Amino acid sequence: MSGRRIRRGPIGFGLSLLRILRGRPQIPPSLRDNQALGVILNRRSVRRFSHEEIPDDVFATILEAGRLAPSTVNLQTWSFATFTCDSWQVTLGGQIPFNAQRAVMILADTHRVRQVLQAFQETPLVEHTVAVMNASLAAMNMTVAAETLGISSVMLSDTGRSGLLDVGHLEECLALPPHVIPIMTIVLGYSRVGRPPMPPKLPLEAIRFEGRYVETDHEVMEAWMAEMTAGYKASHPRSSLGAQLAHYTSKIGAAEADLRAMVLGEGAGSPASSGKPM
Amino acid sequence: MSGRRIRRGPIGFGLSLLRILRGRPQIPPSLRDNQALGVILNRRSVRRFSHEEIPDDVFATILEAGRLAPSTVNLQTWSFATFTCDSWQVTLGGQIPFNAQRAVMILADTHRVRQVLQAFQETPLVEHTVAVMNASLAAMNMTVAAETLGISSVMLSDTGRSGLLDVGHLEECLALPPHVIPIMTIVLGYSRVGRPPMPPKLPLEAIRFEGRYVETDHEVMEAWMAEMTAGYKASHPRSSLGAQLAHYTSKIGAAEADLRAMVLGEGAGSPASSGKPM
Repeated sequence: MSGRRIRRGPIGFGLSLLRILRGRPQIPPSLRDNQALGVILNRRSVRRFSHEEIPDDVFATILEAGRLAPSTVNLQTWSFATFTCDSWQVTLGGQIPFNAQRAVMILADTHRVRQVLQAFQETPLVEHTVAVMNASLAAMNMTVAAETLGISSVMLSDTGRSGLLDVGHLEECLALPPHVIPIMTIVLGYSRVGRPPMPPKLPLEAIRFEGRYVETDHEVMEAWMAEMTAGYKASHPRSSLGAQLAHYTSKIGAAEADLRAMVLGEGAGSPASSGKPM
Repeated sequence: MSGRRIRRGPIGFGLSLLRILRGRPQIPPSLRDNQALGVILNRRSVRRFSHEEIPDDVFATILEAGRLAPSTVNLQTWSFATFTCDSWQVTLGGQIPFNAQRAVMILADTHRVRQVLQAFQETPLVEHTVAVMNASLAAMNMTVAAETLGISSVMLSDTGRSGLLDVGHLEECLALPPHVIPIMTIVLGYSRVGRPPMPPKLPLEAIRFEGRYVETDHEVMEAWMAEMTAGYKASHPRSSLGAQLAHYTSKIGAAEADLRAMVLGEGAGSPASSGKPM
């Protein structure tokens, strides 16, 4: 309902970039001295890291934040596969993406707890949802803890074949038992680019409602898409948001088949989906 | 491989409680002055709140931490349904659980982004997984932000019929469109009980591996279950962990059916593209 028209062409592109660069966390003046809050609200995903190594005890402390995250009935339905540059090379091949120094793959894991209790025997979709939810809580807690230690990070779904879009491939690489689903990899290091601009965020009024569900105004979504497109182009001059989404689309069908096999037991016995890029 | 025997009976119960009370975050001495880190590692789920109200600007700042959470391709696949005591009464009936002053229901929402892009048309399980993951990241970021503001919280999956186990009920109460899945409610307030003891957490070596997946030793899981059982009994003298799990079991089948209808389109009259339950 903002009434602003979506301009196209170079002027629209420039206006979208300006809006991105003006993006700031909204913090009431009375709370601006709260350093811990500032750490959380000023966190950014970083994709360029220095060669500086993360000390072992600092890395262990980041994992501690994952270990101590909340979870449904305290079931802790997660595993953390940790990597140095060397162990990444051995297990997954190549380098940790973005020259990061450490990586933690986050796995939604109900396999472990099945040793001692039967909570989810016949309800795989609830089981999967709970496990993904809890594992993601742990991932965010780790990321924020890293930030308090001056360590930047980014969560990957695809880059380096280390996230949900390569779930079948990772099942093989890590020899995962049933009920263990890799959902993302967090790569960590010291930022080489300071704090990047905030990516285009939807306004709070577009994502919050009270009472019954409220649809987001279409103009708000179009303005946001224009910012997303412009922002992607500015940071990836040789690519585009459309090209990137098309890349995801090319993999997502195989990921869906692999995930259905792993979560719902579908297709077991039929020729296994390969997990290879289509 | 700890070699410790699991004792049963009253002595085992007492030992388990002692282990719970000895539970502390593991923080290297060199990092103990880091206040923001301390806030994260000392966060606890709280279930008893004072009558003190949360100021509007403080609550808005907590939501801001959700708005600024990271998400896959920055798609922000979440909605936040916010509640005061009054709007909870009107929308869901009764009081916010645990006498909390505010509540935020977290919804995994790909409905909104479908207005402007087609990223997930034929891959509902990947779509759901991505949406749950992102919404959970927002939930954790909000919870940690609240903690920095002195506000405690707990995430609910069942209590007050406000989480994943009542997904069909909530779809009705909030008039949710397709592709909007409530996953949990965070209830917030000022703690009336200080900082409760840490619930029994698995040791880091049980949840972390490097390279191929490593099974957790059965003794570790049995010791943890003994602590879980003892801790639950100590905090809920009239109930038991087993009774609580049996309560979940009684609801989880209906939640699975509702979730399959909402996520996979099963049982909705049209022959779903998805396969049938195992």
